[in-house]
Amino acid sequence: MKKTMRAVVKAKPQPGLEFLDVQIPKIGRHDILVKVKAASICGTDVHIYRWDPWARDRLHLPVGVGHEFSGEVVEIGTDVSLVEVGETISAESHVICGYCDMCRTGRGHLCRNTKILGIDRDGGFAEYISIPEANAWIDPEDMPSEIAALQENFGNAVHTAFTADVRSKRVLVTGCGPVGVMTIAVAKAIGARAVYATDISPYRLQLAMKMGADATFNVKEVNVVEAIRAVTEGEGVDVLLEMSGAPTALHDGFALLKPGGEAALLGLPGRPVEFNFDDLLIFKGIRVYGVIGRKIWETWFQARGLIRSKVVDLKPVITHRFPLELYDKAFQLMISGECGKVVLLP
Amino acid sequence: MKKTMRAVVKAKPQPGLEFLDVQIPKIGRHDILVKVKAASICGTDVHIYRWDPWARDRLHLPVGVGHEFSGEVVEIGTDVSLVEVGETISAESHVICGYCDMCRTGRGHLCRNTKILGIDRDGGFAEYISIPEANAWIDPEDMPSEIAALQENFGNAVHTAFTADVRSKRVLVTGCGPVGVMTIAVAKAIGARAVYATDISPYRLQLAMKMGADATFNVKEVNVVEAIRAVTEGEGVDVLLEMSGAPTALHDGFALLKPGGEAALLGLPGRPVEFNFDDLLIFKGIRVYGVIGRKIWETWFQARGLIRSKVVDLKPVITHRFPLELYDKAFQLMISGECGKVVLLP
Amino acid sequence: MKKTMRAVVKAKPQPGLEFLDVQIPKIGRHDILVKVKAASICGTDVHIYRWDPWARDRLHLPVGVGHEFSGEVVEIGTDVSLVEVGETISAESHVICGYCDMCRTGRGHLCRNTKILGIDRDGGFAEYISIPEANAWIDPEDMPSEIAALQENFGNAVHTAFTADVRSKRVLVTGCGPVGVMTIAVAKAIGARAVYATDISPYRLQLAMKMGADATFNVKEVNVVEAIRAVTEGEGVDVLLEMSGAPTALHDGFALLKPGGEAALLGLPGRPVEFNFDDLLIFKGIRVYGVIGRKIWETWFQARGLIRSKVVDLKPVITHRFPLELYDKAFQLMISGECGKVVLLP
Amino acid sequence: MKKTMRAVVKAKPQPGLEFLDVQIPKIGRHDILVKVKAASICGTDVHIYRWDPWARDRLHLPVGVGHEFSGEVVEIGTDVSLVEVGETISAESHVICGYCDMCRTGRGHLCRNTKILGIDRDGGFAEYISIPEANAWIDPEDMPSEIAALQENFGNAVHTAFTADVRSKRVLVTGCGPVGVMTIAVAKAIGARAVYATDISPYRLQLAMKMGADATFNVKEVNVVEAIRAVTEGEGVDVLLEMSGAPTALHDGFALLKPGGEAALLGLPGRPVEFNFDDLLIFKGIRVYGVIGRKIWETWFQARGLIRSKVVDLKPVITHRFPLELYDKAFQLMISGECGKVVLLP
Repeated sequence: MKKTMRAVVKAKPQPGLEFLDVQIPKIGRHDILVKVKAASICGTDVHIYRWDPWARDRLHLPVGVGHEFSGEVVEIGTDVSLVEVGETISAESHVICGYCDMCRTGRGHLCRNTKILGIDRDGGFAEYISIPEANAWIDPEDMPSEIAALQENFGNAVHTAFTADVRSKRVLVTGCGPVGVMTIAVAKAIGARAVYATDISPYRLQLAMKMGADATFNVKEVNVVEAIRAVTEGEGVDVLLEMSGAPTALHDGFALLKPGGEAALLGLPGRPVEFNFDDLLIFKGIRVYGVIGRKIWETWFQARGLIRSKVVDLKPVITHRFPLELYDKAFQLMISGECGKVVLLP
Repeated sequence: MKKTMRAVVKAKPQPGLEFLDVQIPKIGRHDILVKVKAASICGTDVHIYRWDPWARDRLHLPVGVGHEFSGEVVEIGTDVSLVEVGETISAESHVICGYCDMCRTGRGHLCRNTKILGIDRDGGFAEYISIPEANAWIDPEDMPSEIAALQENFGNAVHTAFTADVRSKRVLVTGCGPVGVMTIAVAKAIGARAVYATDISPYRLQLAMKMGADATFNVKEVNVVEAIRAVTEGEGVDVLLEMSGAPTALHDGFALLKPGGEAALLGLPGRPVEFNFDDLLIFKGIRVYGVIGRKIWETWFQARGLIRSKVVDLKPVITHRFPLELYDKAFQLMISGECGKVVLLP
Repeated sequence: MKKTMRAVVKAKPQPGLEFLDVQIPKIGRHDILVKVKAASICGTDVHIYRWDPWARDRLHLPVGVGHEFSGEVVEIGTDVSLVEVGETISAESHVICGYCDMCRTGRGHLCRNTKILGIDRDGGFAEYISIPEANAWIDPEDMPSEIAALQENFGNAVHTAFTADVRSKRVLVTGCGPVGVMTIAVAKAIGARAVYATDISPYRLQLAMKMGADATFNVKEVNVVEAIRAVTEGEGVDVLLEMSGAPTALHDGFALLKPGGEAALLGLPGRPVEFNFDDLLIFKGIRVYGVIGRKIWETWFQARGLIRSKVVDLKPVITHRFPLELYDKAFQLMISGECGKVVLLP
Repeated sequence: MKKTMRAVVKAKPQPGLEFLDVQIPKIGRHDILVKVKAASICGTDVHIYRWDPWARDRLHLPVGVGHEFSGEVVEIGTDVSLVEVGETISAESHVICGYCDMCRTGRGHLCRNTKILGIDRDGGFAEYISIPEANAWIDPEDMPSEIAALQENFGNAVHTAFTADVRSKRVLVTGCGPVGVMTIAVAKAIGARAVYATDISPYRLQLAMKMGADATFNVKEVNVVEAIRAVTEGEGVDVLLEMSGAPTALHDGFALLKPGGEAALLGLPGRPVEFNFDDLLIFKGIRVYGVIGRKIWETWFQARGLIRSKVVDLKPVITHRFPLELYDKAFQLMISGECGKVVLLP
């Protein structure tokens, strides 16, 4: 086996990424080496590409990028028992400690010592990646690599939609990026009466319709509060799934919630937001859930069930594919917003 | 308006029913008079027809039969404020007191003083029925009368399926009578990964497939426990929805439940059943829910959402229609089991 | 019976209240007339007294004030069936419609047509009050009138503390007004491992200790976040019960929440608050519940159980009593903050 | 260090136990060696002593007995990172696999590959025991050894009482063995309005009173259903915590449940029981929870909170102490039933 590989690396404290020859990672006793077959770009990767304040605070350079991927196990550590060479896997990107109070009470997604692949340690936009065996999710052999890679991100959608009770309810999804549109598909699959979706991009609103939205609203063009009241007999919605992080989405979404409604928040505003707790939350008896990552492994089992039973079809989400070396073009496309999920193929 | 009407009445303490001329009911201040447009036959009505021990204990004769119906409001009491003459309604069949501890804590379906239409007071297999306005559920004008009539019974299916968390889970529905097959449709609509169904009637198992079951198993022909393990990688199911009341369904259903599974029980065994609490319930940490009636009105709102959004289609459940005067033929068909839901048209 | 009575009335659009001779209220068919025995002053009454912007927007003058009271039923309407003359009652202050979607799904506390006694219709700081029989809560004969009067407000505390799971958890109660200190008592009674309390008033913090707080912190004197971390091995708290409406209490309370924590919000900030959703809510996977009023009647049953079983003792909360005609002195005391609950005796 | 130790061993397939010299256990890379300071006898140990059918089916002889213990860590395996030599620990007795679907979804107490200390591998009625570090629960230094040993069994009580919502509710605990009386203490600590307890032993009913029961009923002397209805205004109880496994306790307990009530079942009948699902479970809309083991580690954290905050005092449960070599006398006492928890001191 060769010693080096090609990898997309954040090497310098400035915008952009580099495509470098680096050592193929060594594996520890409990690690596995994965030959990456497909990887997909996440909004977080774009933050790293752009080198925004969050990225500058969080990253220690150099670090290989990418945390959504699938591949084949090509080597295993001496103590590995859960995975075998030759198996196809995807990966939970949160490497959790296993011993903090969160991990010890079945809430590993809130682990106090989380390290994230492609952020805190080398990631999957590379020919090979080393991960702990505990992070491996064995995929069925007949699952396409790009769908397998997408599962991590799909898990965010599942986690969000499963947090609230959407059965026979009217649901508003604010933000139609890839996670948003997958959330629409999940909400429909688990019985939402209607799913309304908002965004500022016509491209993404169209994708929302493809993924099952009953109606979409462009925030730039209509007064969303009035428009959604109009299609709900003035009642508004039972459930808000906030995927955008936009302050106006928070305000409008909560304004549209019926008394007793539920809101699951995944989108990150990135800065403090003025919020009217009295009218938007307390007087209406709203319940709000902060959503982060995926429940390990509950969300993965749920995601698998939805995919395998075909009640959710993820294919339309993947709109573009690039060979790994064209990563820069892929990132530029992501920044344009004129895409769904973009897949890199090493 | 005429003074008398035709009604199906349990008049004598013996099997069968009679088709009589009776007074059109008077309404009290809070009651409404409904001209029945469609009514459907429930298993409970068959118990009354057959005059089985339960019926003999419970009924005070004579009493008009039938509790699933829809119709038009033709007269309202002086204090009625929620319903207007000319509106189309269905009815919650449980007339609840409103003041017991159950009613006062949002659990009217468990009211300690429940009276049931068609059992404890005159029912809807008649040209007219008087009901409290509090029991009226106003239907959209474009809803077919027979679907509207079916909502009460559909509510049992919704109540049962909504009791457990079926999202992305494997679900076993034991018993494919009309409520059973509607429960299958609901479970699929709210995201079950797979729904397996059992019964002893090929006719009903075929209906189960029409309503969305992924696979059916005839208890007379196969070992259900083995057969369902075989299609679930040996794991069994996450959720049992027991709609038959058959002791073998209880045993097999619980045997198939995975650890941590949930069971919702609607079918009534009718007599004590030998049950292995250790292996079937305690060691596996199973949760069990007794299901009775419909949550008033939560279940009705849920049912409406599923019907209006077309995620559930009830049409295939209705397999036969008879004019009211052919009620006896309709009951004979029900007894044969070679039918889904049978509708009577006054 | 005499025709007029003495009542505390908001008669003019300016600060203060008046003590007037008014007609004894007439009762409708479903109403009861109650001779008030004790009434307690709520923070809302102080808003009305002060004539702040909220009060100016909401009230239509003149209106009798007061919504926490108990008394004896002295007359009943012709259709009343739940209450008899001579019985002692307290009152749910929210007069709900009974037919909106919230009322019809067991969520009357979120009724879309709520009218509140003493705000939207004449209240209980008077010799007599007329209320719907549906709002009467029959008290045991041996319950002291002032405790009976307090139940409505105690219900807010019960509702808040019961919203989260405090069993064996560390709980922070921000705000030690009367509802806050009753919430402390409830949290302790239902198994909190420790209850920490914050306020700016030494008087109220002392009352918090009397009601069962394990430790109190004066926000003016210490850095609450540091101080509570210090007594919780750096971990913070599992549950926040926010009773003050103070923005700093929101920020500090959420900052102290452990990942996976729960926050129940009853206090009303009164204006939009800058809030860091990322760090305080989303990254930590926090669940938040807006709390308004009391679940009707679930909260009342819960409150009764806590009082009757003596696991909560409300006596220390009542710190002052005044004859009704000294209402102005009572309100001045309330404004000073140097009191717990203040009772008026007609 | 010496090579052999004294241990209570099930060596022969017949009633009784033996006190033998055996090798001090070797530890693997992830194990720790614990010098036992205190151990307590569980009902399961009595089954093994008696060599009943369950024991005959389950055990492979010889095996050291005892799964409730505490002690000092005296040696650690080369890969151990969570525990240090010199620390005082108790142990979760279920050795779980960590990779089955139950373990991977936060439900380790339902692990499909559970091995139990003192049943499937050598236990803690010995001078030393080897356990996986993953099973160690580090205790505070000031916790008495016998209380520390008791935590495993106390966890069963916590798990059971926390399964239902007992806040402000009337609770029936059937069975006043050690777990039963600890469950009483927990139910009171987390806000039960009243706890009623039943058993056939006056000694145990007295212990129930000491642990906080509001009233006790000897099943041999009174009709429990009538007696408990009499003290609950005819209403019965909201929650049943079944700790005895006695069929009559199941029947009476469910008969006493109010509509909408909850039942948590920990006691094992040991054989199928005739049960009236219609009247006892379905018509009343009862929810039932099978309870096994302890949630790992959620229950342990809950148990710690209750003990450390002193809302539960376990001292009265421990009624007898014996040096380890008098184990046979201790078992005879357990069989007599005239005891609470019996502690062995190596």
